[in-house]
Parts: sequence; structure tokens; C-alpha cells
Amino acid sequence: MQFDKITIIGLGLIGGSLALALKSSEQVKLITGVDRDADSVDTALQKGIIDEGQVSAQGLSGDSDIVVIATHVGSIVDVAGSLNVSSKAVVTDTGSVKAGIVKEIEGSCDFSFVGSHPIAGTEKSGVNNIVEGLFENKLTIITPTENAGAKDMDKITSMWQLAGSKVINMSADRHDEIFARVSHLPHVAAFSLINSLLQKDSSLFNYGGGGLRDFSRIAESSPDMWADIFIANKEEILKAIDEFRDSLNQIEHSIESNDKKNLKKILSRVSKIKKS
Amino acid sequence: MQFDKITIIGLGLIGGSLALALKSSEQVKLITGVDRDADSVDTALQKGIIDEGQVSAQGLSGDSDIVVIATHVGSIVDVAGSLNVSSKAVVTDTGSVKAGIVKEIEGSCDFSFVGSHPIAGTEKSGVNNIVEGLFENKLTIITPTENAGAKDMDKITSMWQLAGSKVINMSADRHDEIFARVSHLPHVAAFSLINSLLQKDSSLFNYGGGGLRDFSRIAESSPDMWADIFIANKEEILKAIDEFRDSLNQIEHSIESNDKKNLKKILSRVSKIKKS
Repeated sequence: MQFDKITIIGLGLIGGSLALALKSSEQVKLITGVDRDADSVDTALQKGIIDEGQVSAQGLSGDSDIVVIATHVGSIVDVAGSLNVSSKAVVTDTGSVKAGIVKEIEGSCDFSFVGSHPIAGTEKSGVNNIVEGLFENKLTIITPTENAGAKDMDKITSMWQLAGSKVINMSADRHDEIFARVSHLPHVAAFSLINSLLQKDSSLFNYGGGGLRDFSRIAESSPDMWADIFIANKEEILKAIDEFRDSLNQIEHSIESNDKKNLKKILSRVSKIKKS
Repeated sequence: MQFDKITIIGLGLIGGSLALALKSSEQVKLITGVDRDADSVDTALQKGIIDEGQVSAQGLSGDSDIVVIATHVGSIVDVAGSLNVSSKAVVTDTGSVKAGIVKEIEGSCDFSFVGSHPIAGTEKSGVNNIVEGLFENKLTIITPTENAGAKDMDKITSMWQLAGSKVINMSADRHDEIFARVSHLPHVAAFSLINSLLQKDSSLFNYGGGGLRDFSRIAESSPDMWADIFIANKEEILKAIDEFRDSLNQIEHSIESNDKKNLKKILSRVSKIKKS
């Protein structure tokens, strides 16, 4: 599928890398970019990943085939509410939390909307850290509701495929249940662990080996972005934290009672996951 | 310092990589290797990282300058008890837990002992996974007690320096306090997290992004080795788990009460650590 015009709002790691991927595909006649930070717009223009850009979505997105809201989770609904798009446009987002966003946008906006979540990223953010091929062979989950038309779903699917992604459909609730556990919980755990060390004794960081390095890398991620995500997916994350604490208690109990047999049983089951 | 003979007991990742490093230094006339697994001894001989080897320490270690016990934490004390070494030998180990091991060996063995912990490793184990330069520019902590002679400490320090390590001294108690938090706790947390996902729904692992991948890597580490470590450093690890749970509760509470301000405050403090 070819597109006349795609507008991307939010030229960060995800929005910028999507612009780059679509530009490289040569299947989009005009890519417009919007970012409230003028420097990001200038950089995106200089890199040649957008054809035109400005700091406000006003006027830009009107005749787009697709409008992609690639801002932080906490501002997607507000940005959607400010859009003025033609009836041919379908709007999507790239947020890593879906249920609340989809519900709020469908309840308050009169355009077609299909939520997306590309499972790609690094711990870095901003247009200066965009990555060529970021979505290549990565999964993108789209979360169409019963309101979504087949044509709208096709458009959004085609766009992510142009960027190199494999696209699957899922309900927004199932999406949030999964990502609370495979993405949000690891971040909660990493932030909590580094925080506990900081509270104990910051000289500990002079002795970090392999284990700590991996945790530090995760915990380096943008605080603003993750605070938004944690609160947006609050219900599922709180459940996931409870499940995690139960599991931590099991391991703690085995250590406390010198139950090496049970400890090895748990650790063996866990270490098989990666190998399988 | 040059050595006539160094014996390494346990030809796994650490023992094997140490043999390789000492062999490459050309400052050790004879390196003997011991492993209860005959295949590991054969492989080490074939790789040329030891000059002679056998499946039992009997007879081999008698006239060594240094005997290195590079077995799992859970068997170091037993191996030490079975040694028959001359009075010129100093014995060390490579265990990542120190206080209990040092105390037990000093209390029951009549040879000189200086505990070591090289801060190096990967999640892989065994002589087939040895790494050239594994100790290069890595820290090795030695934990001499008041019983250790200056000559003995010099010998052990020199050996690790020959292997490329920077060596520092520390009390065994302080060592265990630090490594409970920077190494053992991250493993407890990673094993707990993967275990909680397994208990919830194993299809979750089809959706692992960056965060989960780092946790899986840590949790792939040897179950036997880590069960031994967790129990050997039980007291400090249980304290570290309590501190971690407190920190997890703080973050959980901020999410629960939609306190984005406090959440961002905690996450910002954490993410500054890596950047600084």
C-alpha cells in the first residue's frame, strides 16, 4: 500500500525512527512531523526523515491518510483531543499502554482510531537517538475495537509493515495484561532495586558486576515516560507486582529455611525458559 | 613474581579462564588442573591451559606455591578439608561469598588461606565457555584475616595481577554485605520475576521486549551455583531482600495513589546513577 501523506506527532525515538523507516520505504509521498520542541523538528528536517514539520499539529494533519501520535503515554489522549483531521484519516498511537487510551479516545473523538504498540525501543530517547531498522522484524501489536473498519485496520497494518514490522491484533485489555508483566514489571523491579541500593549506600555502585549492569541499563530509561506508563497501566501493574512479591517470598522462604532442594527446583525451572 | 607450580581445583569458567590467563602470562612453570569431571580435565589438557591434570587432588597439590579452589561455593570448604599441601603453599578460593568460607577453613585447616573473589564471569559455565582475558582490568577482592602473613597475601595478589586483575583487600563481612546487594539480590530479583511470569502464563514469553531479555539473561545462570550462593550468604541476602521489598513498596504506593510527582522523583534519582 502507498500513502500520500502520513503525519507523525512526537519526533522522539519511536516517532523519529518511524519517520526514517517510512522515508526509506519510498512508499509515502509526504511525511510531516510535529514536535513541540523546535530543535527536534529542525533536526528531523536536517536528517531528511520528514518533508515538512512544525511545533504544533494545527493545520498539518488535516489531509493525512494516517496520523501517528508518538508522544509519551501520558499525553496521547490530550493530543488526540486537539486534532482536526479529515474523515479519510485514521489515527493511531504508539503507546505501550492501550486499554485506557483506546477507551478515552473512542469515547471523545470523532475520527477513526486503531491503537498500536510497536515492541521496539532502547533505553535512550529523543530524535538524536533514532535507530535505522528499529522496527525491522519486530512485533507491532494493534488493538482494533469493534468500531474499527477493515479499511482502517489495513491502513495501520500496512504502515507498520512498511516500517518492517510483523503486525498482530489483540484486545487492548489482553495487551495491557501481557505488557504489565513482560515490560512494565521488569522496569518497576529494576527501578526498585537500584533505589534500594541508593538508600542503603551509594558506594555500592563501585562494585557492580554483570547482574547490576543489566539492572542499571533498564533503570536508565526516561523517568517521565515510565512514571506515565506505570500510572496508565496501574491496575495490571499492581496485580503483576503482587504476583512478583509472591514469587520473591517463595525464594526468600527457601533461603531462610535452607531449603536448597526447593530453591534449585525453582531456579532450574526458571533457567530452562531461556534455554528452550 | 614467578611461580614454580599453581594447582587449580575446578576447571569451570573461572578456574579454566584463570589457567588460560596464567598460562598466557608465561610466569608459571607448571599449572596443574583438577576436576572431578574427566572430560573437563581432558578438554583443559587439549586446550593447553594446564600442563597436567587429574580427577582428584590427591598427590597433585602437595608441592604447589598456590592452590586455587575454583569450585562452586557449596563445596569449597569440603575441598579445602580434603587437601594435603606442603607448608610453603598458600590456598585461596574464588567463591562469591566469603565470610562463612573463610571462617570455616581457618577454623579447621592447618594451611595458610587467603580468600579471593574475582569480579568476573558470564552467565555461561564450564571449561568449554572459558574466556580469554576474563580477569583483564577486572577487580579481584581478597579477604585476608589477621592470620594471613604478608608473604601469603603478596603471592595471592601477584597471581591475580598476572591474570590481569586489579586487586583490593577487604574484610570478608564487608565483601558479603556489598555482594549481597550488587550481585546476589539482582539474581534473586531476576529469578523471582521470571518465576512469577511462569506461574502466571508461560505464553507471556512470546512477547518479551528489552526489559525481559535482560532479566532472562541473568536468570539463565546456573541454578546449582546460585542456590549455593543464596544459602551461603543467607544473612546478608535476607537483609537485602527486605531493603528491596521496602523500595518496591514505595514505588507501588506511588502508583497506587497516582502520585506521579513522587514516582518521578524516585525514578529520576535512580536514572541519574547510571548517567553519573
